[in-house]
Amino acid sequence: MKKIEHIGIAVKSLKDSNLMYEKLLGVKPYKIEEVASEGVNTSFFEMGESKVELLEAITETSAIAKFLEKHGPGIHHIAYAVDDIKQELQRLKSEGFELINEEPKKGADNKWVAFLHPKSTAGVLIELCQERTPENDKEE
Amino acid sequence: MKKIEHIGIAVKSLKDSNLMYEKLLGVKPYKIEEVASEGVNTSFFEMGESKVELLEAITETSAIAKFLEKHGPGIHHIAYAVDDIKQELQRLKSEGFELINEEPKKGADNKWVAFLHPKSTAGVLIELCQERTPENDKEE
Repeated sequence: MKKIEHIGIAVKSLKDSNLMYEKLLGVKPYKIEEVASEGVNTSFFEMGESKVELLEAITETSAIAKFLEKHGPGIHHIAYAVDDIKQELQRLKSEGFELINEEPKKGADNKWVAFLHPKSTAGVLIELCQERTPENDKEE
Repeated sequence: MKKIEHIGIAVKSLKDSNLMYEKLLGVKPYKIEEVASEGVNTSFFEMGESKVELLEAITETSAIAKFLEKHGPGIHHIAYAVDDIKQELQRLKSEGFELINEEPKKGADNKWVAFLHPKSTAGVLIELCQERTPENDKEE
């Protein structure tokens, strides 16, 4: 793990929360992106070398819709940047961590992503992120 | 706000979680510190320009004991680094954010800290942090 890539926060309304986070952080979102495969709308705010990602559900069956129903709005996951996501998934699996995704999938903000199960991380949903490039896109 | 200073994670056992986070992040905690005034034991892991703080309750009435009872282990707060915590508290108050602490107090890891109420931040407990120095300690 190299750094905190982003913190993912589940919100009820992306529009309202974007305005609130603009006031809070003093910056506007640098990107608003729909990730149809995950059933979410997202926005990203730069904060030092990390980002804050807000997530709004756009389908009732999305993970974010279920999270909001169970917990209400709040912190959903922490994402760490890694250099080689496949290697890191293997390392963590061998250390006893339970993987939600055995293979990386395409996530928001041009990333390969994979999640670790909160069961094996003391209740925290953890995402690994690697930047997508023309080179590693070919490996898919 | 300048950067994510740390992410605070409530854990049942600091000893067990320190071992798990060593495996997860690939680094050992650089500091283990009791904050008696908050009823917690803490450990800190460096992660890029940010830190991961693990928090274990040492009193039944501490905020972390109550959080664990209600939610189980998981992400407790996000802390942002600021240059002037008093000024930033005034700015956020004037923007409509609800302050838990009107004045900064001494926190872990040599910081002045103050919290914003999750009611005004869409469910996220937010901490502001400023490094303590001989100069700003005098202002107390």
